[in-house]
Amino acid sequence: MILMRQIVPAAITNGTLCRVPAPILTQPEKEEDRSMIVVMQTGSSQADIDAVLERLKEYNLQGHLTIGAERTVVAVVGATIPPTLREELEYCNGVKETVRITQPYKLVSREVRPHDTIVDVRGIKVGGGSTVVIAGPCSVESEAQIMESARVVREAGASMLRGGAFKPRSSPYTFRGLGELGLQLLAQARDETGLPIVTEVMTPTDVELVARYADVLQIGARNMQNYQLLEEVGRTGMPVLLKRGLSATIEEWLLSAEYVIAQGNPNVILCERGIRTFETATRNTMDLNAVALAKRRTHLPVIVDPSHGTGKWYLVPPLALASIAAGADGLIMEVHPDPDRAKSDGGQSLNPENFAALMPKIAAVAAAVRG
Amino acid sequence: MILMRQIVPAAITNGTLCRVPAPILTQPEKEEDRSMIVVMQTGSSQADIDAVLERLKEYNLQGHLTIGAERTVVAVVGATIPPTLREELEYCNGVKETVRITQPYKLVSREVRPHDTIVDVRGIKVGGGSTVVIAGPCSVESEAQIMESARVVREAGASMLRGGAFKPRSSPYTFRGLGELGLQLLAQARDETGLPIVTEVMTPTDVELVARYADVLQIGARNMQNYQLLEEVGRTGMPVLLKRGLSATIEEWLLSAEYVIAQGNPNVILCERGIRTFETATRNTMDLNAVALAKRRTHLPVIVDPSHGTGKWYLVPPLALASIAAGADGLIMEVHPDPDRAKSDGGQSLNPENFAALMPKIAAVAAAVRG
Amino acid sequence: MILMRQIVPAAITNGTLCRVPAPILTQPEKEEDRSMIVVMQTGSSQADIDAVLERLKEYNLQGHLTIGAERTVVAVVGATIPPTLREELEYCNGVKETVRITQPYKLVSREVRPHDTIVDVRGIKVGGGSTVVIAGPCSVESEAQIMESARVVREAGASMLRGGAFKPRSSPYTFRGLGELGLQLLAQARDETGLPIVTEVMTPTDVELVARYADVLQIGARNMQNYQLLEEVGRTGMPVLLKRGLSATIEEWLLSAEYVIAQGNPNVILCERGIRTFETATRNTMDLNAVALAKRRTHLPVIVDPSHGTGKWYLVPPLALASIAAGADGLIMEVHPDPDRAKSDGGQSLNPENFAALMPKIAAVAAAVRG
Amino acid sequence: MILMRQIVPAAITNGTLCRVPAPILTQPEKEEDRSMIVVMQTGSSQADIDAVLERLKEYNLQGHLTIGAERTVVAVVGATIPPTLREELEYCNGVKETVRITQPYKLVSREVRPHDTIVDVRGIKVGGGSTVVIAGPCSVESEAQIMESARVVREAGASMLRGGAFKPRSSPYTFRGLGELGLQLLAQARDETGLPIVTEVMTPTDVELVARYADVLQIGARNMQNYQLLEEVGRTGMPVLLKRGLSATIEEWLLSAEYVIAQGNPNVILCERGIRTFETATRNTMDLNAVALAKRRTHLPVIVDPSHGTGKWYLVPPLALASIAAGADGLIMEVHPDPDRAKSDGGQSLNPENFAALMPKIAAVAAAVRG
Repeated sequence: MILMRQIVPAAITNGTLCRVPAPILTQPEKEEDRSMIVVMQTGSSQADIDAVLERLKEYNLQGHLTIGAERTVVAVVGATIPPTLREELEYCNGVKETVRITQPYKLVSREVRPHDTIVDVRGIKVGGGSTVVIAGPCSVESEAQIMESARVVREAGASMLRGGAFKPRSSPYTFRGLGELGLQLLAQARDETGLPIVTEVMTPTDVELVARYADVLQIGARNMQNYQLLEEVGRTGMPVLLKRGLSATIEEWLLSAEYVIAQGNPNVILCERGIRTFETATRNTMDLNAVALAKRRTHLPVIVDPSHGTGKWYLVPPLALASIAAGADGLIMEVHPDPDRAKSDGGQSLNPENFAALMPKIAAVAAAVRG
Repeated sequence: MILMRQIVPAAITNGTLCRVPAPILTQPEKEEDRSMIVVMQTGSSQADIDAVLERLKEYNLQGHLTIGAERTVVAVVGATIPPTLREELEYCNGVKETVRITQPYKLVSREVRPHDTIVDVRGIKVGGGSTVVIAGPCSVESEAQIMESARVVREAGASMLRGGAFKPRSSPYTFRGLGELGLQLLAQARDETGLPIVTEVMTPTDVELVARYADVLQIGARNMQNYQLLEEVGRTGMPVLLKRGLSATIEEWLLSAEYVIAQGNPNVILCERGIRTFETATRNTMDLNAVALAKRRTHLPVIVDPSHGTGKWYLVPPLALASIAAGADGLIMEVHPDPDRAKSDGGQSLNPENFAALMPKIAAVAAAVRG
Repeated sequence: MILMRQIVPAAITNGTLCRVPAPILTQPEKEEDRSMIVVMQTGSSQADIDAVLERLKEYNLQGHLTIGAERTVVAVVGATIPPTLREELEYCNGVKETVRITQPYKLVSREVRPHDTIVDVRGIKVGGGSTVVIAGPCSVESEAQIMESARVVREAGASMLRGGAFKPRSSPYTFRGLGELGLQLLAQARDETGLPIVTEVMTPTDVELVARYADVLQIGARNMQNYQLLEEVGRTGMPVLLKRGLSATIEEWLLSAEYVIAQGNPNVILCERGIRTFETATRNTMDLNAVALAKRRTHLPVIVDPSHGTGKWYLVPPLALASIAAGADGLIMEVHPDPDRAKSDGGQSLNPENFAALMPKIAAVAAAVRG
Repeated sequence: MILMRQIVPAAITNGTLCRVPAPILTQPEKEEDRSMIVVMQTGSSQADIDAVLERLKEYNLQGHLTIGAERTVVAVVGATIPPTLREELEYCNGVKETVRITQPYKLVSREVRPHDTIVDVRGIKVGGGSTVVIAGPCSVESEAQIMESARVVREAGASMLRGGAFKPRSSPYTFRGLGELGLQLLAQARDETGLPIVTEVMTPTDVELVARYADVLQIGARNMQNYQLLEEVGRTGMPVLLKRGLSATIEEWLLSAEYVIAQGNPNVILCERGIRTFETATRNTMDLNAVALAKRRTHLPVIVDPSHGTGKWYLVPPLALASIAAGADGLIMEVHPDPDRAKSDGGQSLNPENFAALMPKIAAVAAAVRG
């Protein structure tokens, strides 16, 4: 996980604060008034930084501190910024400049942190120029199935194993996953293959349970705006894979990442997985514009899920390659030892042969775009 | 609340069952195989019904019993239906026929329950031919604001009071409501005006708290597929206002209602509130086709939220009237004593004068379409 | 047709002008610079107006003059407006003020013409408070079919007859209408019943032919941005029914109306017919927000087509009523003597009984919203 | 242009036929009944083929003959197929089998023609494994601008020059291109650089004029369902670049290609250019799923326009590379010598330096996916 010293005033760790903000009438009129970062001079001292944070506190503002190799930045968040504050801060020792932020998100913005965030998952680096491939079945179905899946994806060169133990399903009458048993089987697969595991958590009260087994906590598309869940995974400090909602704008997606990071957890991996449009020939419409734009606007790693993005296994290879060419930092794909017998998503799962054939192509395209 | 005797085998009330279904390999291959209702003959005895339920249990199936004035129906839910079961059941005493259900939802379907469900909220009937108007501010902001709101909407003829204490917000830095204080203020407004209160609950662990104050538990659009939350409000047995998700299909919306009813709570009010489309001149696109289609496919009451559906106060009156003309059972609208100073959604809130002017028009249109 | 004295410099009637504008480099940088209206003082003389028009000509601008009961307005269109022109014009005799127009459309805007346009179709008034019902089959199929259709819709109270002679079809292998024979049969139906006829024209070279038979020229959704066709129907001066494109924004729809009116033809009837969204349970999603917003932004009459807007005959009645309640000036609906045998759109056509039952409801809702 | 012997009965070249089909009541009830291909045995004689065509004529059907290296196929189009015809044809000499076609399009389908169509544009091959790059400004603005554009794109390695002489514009008051002068300037640029030219034609009556200058006739997104225009360019036999409509499904896009090919012109190049969705951060949403799916379903070449697909010049390079990785046969991109001064689309045009830097990357990705 990346280095980020964060100043969180006591209040923000108090889960009830956000619900009962004390001064009811301090709500700012306009979004733009609340967005500012303070860029410190190279070589500014700790005392300089503390003085800035102290000044913010006087105005009931919070400061999120990001110490980078090239610059140290204080993001000002949380309440109305008085019109005079900007000038005031620019007179402080060690302050180089203050910058208005034009987007509603702050901590995820490249304006605040220009360099790529690299999320470290048991030594696997996500972001920063490498290409990560996460593969495995939609759902954990049985010990045999998940162990076989883990072996085939590792042999083909995958970096991590995916598998659902808790499955969100549109109908209450369909298979919802094996629950904790599924988590145990995933852990067993990790023990044997060494692959870190990525699995979904659906509700705040399950976070502690899932976090005991998983290496990356996945937030599904349906939960992208489940704010209590975002804050709960934020509090774990663990890597979080945040899928874009079915009809979420890029801005809303980044704001959801902001919810996680605002809890002091910078380890967010964004995941584009297709949006809902009028087209019905494919399950969703992959939005690779969003990948390229997110890479430009935020420092977070962005990966793509072409299995859900297309809904058809035979479209997964071309769209996987397209995602890498568009600048994605990796892929998450459904691979099943026997897709025709999968309990869910069989039609969009690659079989082991097709997955193995795809992997060298992914490397070749990555080399072509980065070379 | 409506009369509905429901047969829930012990297992379904056990929250963990759905997560760890015992026999892993009983997953049905095709959706269609799972959908059947058993229509009992007029005058069938309790013993006849019990025999049918017993037979279902033998196949690990559940039966939801709906006793209507005209017909008694057992909806078969939850697992693979053996191909021979249909014939088997038709030989049972008291069974008139079995009917395949073509939609993936069952308990919400008019095929199962042909007559309108009427949800009773402290004596106010929602559904079945009346027109309910729920009005109030987006958020509870202060005692003065909510008391004033309650008074003006009651004077104009509203049936219930709305007001948000827990607010879902795209950005972590915006006002998220007063929390429990907001609930207390709503209760105080109910005490004074007699208006039942409708307020949102956002996460399963808050359900108990909100249920202590509210008369109707609102599920917001962002949470339409928060399944743990749906099941939790299902377990309360209380009236639930289920908003359609921003990009949810009508089928997904009805399946989410099915989640609530599958917990034994038939008191669901559907709420259309606009969908996300390419059009940006309005906040959302009201889908009144969905209102008319939902009224045809389900027995549940359907109301409309033209405030969120349009995002502009001056479009609320024409769209409110259109909703009633399309067959809606009521409206939920944002009314604020001073919209220009509202903490949220001021631009789409009616002021008291405009709301008062609209109310008789609503009655006139309701009379025109039903007369 | 409404009174509108229009100043069209010779060049604009020359079809090639728009294609080869003489001074290549006069392209304005910003949309906003081009939008202005000049409001004349009450009692300004013809000489005052002529002087304003003359001044515009000097800058290669055109002036569209609208003489209303309350105010006379010159809309300035067509090229870069020099920054000094505004002040210059305000010094002219008889000029009350100049107004920047914020929308890209001008002649269709209520800013230019505050009062409702009323389009007169053989004595039938469209717009201005009445409710017009246009009904008939999707396609003219045979003499018997169109004569029978005309009789049943007239008996039920329709004001005009619709019927397609030229049909746009996605596939080149499906029925494309009877062509001129269809037009002749429509004219025959008009002769017998007195109902004016509305029929589609698909390509500029057919405009003259269709105009010989039709009373209203319909522009279909697929042709909403067929600009040569818009200009050609504009040049006829005849009433034009302009359907909104499947994914056209409200602004684009009004700009297409502007194309017609810019040719000197103010007789445009807008028609909302459903937009394409993610929802597939209905053929299209009716956008009644657009009806209410268009009524606010433009002076043109707006009607609604619930047959295409829903795609299901049983949704046509509730959505027809909703359209009127939302403020529409009328409806265009598919009615077929025998929908099950219709060559096209049978599933969305009302049969004569259902149409007859709907008509008094339409009148009742119109009375309720206007009363 | 590819070899395609086509049997067009006299009637189909008669522009009025489609409008006034003689037997009014032969309209088939169901789409599926009309779709069949007849696969001839290897080595079947001309007499065998003629006999099949003769038999079809007896039933008022047409046969489109495609003679490939591996198989000769007769596509049966245009009217109801009698239920007995299939068996009848299978008894004919030289017939190997008959195949039901599941899609509504036929001539564009890989079921009819399994091998890639290669469209030859003055010796440049589009389709079949090569990567074509078409580049140039949105509009032809002046002689200097188009000559400079042609030189810079040729130097960087582009295969063809694009440039608009007739521009479709939402507003009647914006620059609509230089018309015939623009065509003349394009021809001059071709004379100097040798680059074939691609330019849009907007209306049937302009086809002859544009065809005198252009090498490829472009059909813009707004005109994808302008059927008279499709048939008119079909009759020229020239290469046609068919852009997907803003909200056209993949099926509708292929059906529009079918309109062109049904006129005997197999030289169609499909072009994905982004669809309209709820996302507003980019001008359109590029649908690369559609590219991969179209490549699977049809034998036609598919290229991509990332300039319109993204609307932002800095997203063009990643999405251009992604398009090639998804399997596109080429790209069409806006390149302007001085984008900041472009009359239209400046914000999405690459400058010469960025275009030159992109070209070797395109080659590298093409090599990676095909190697």
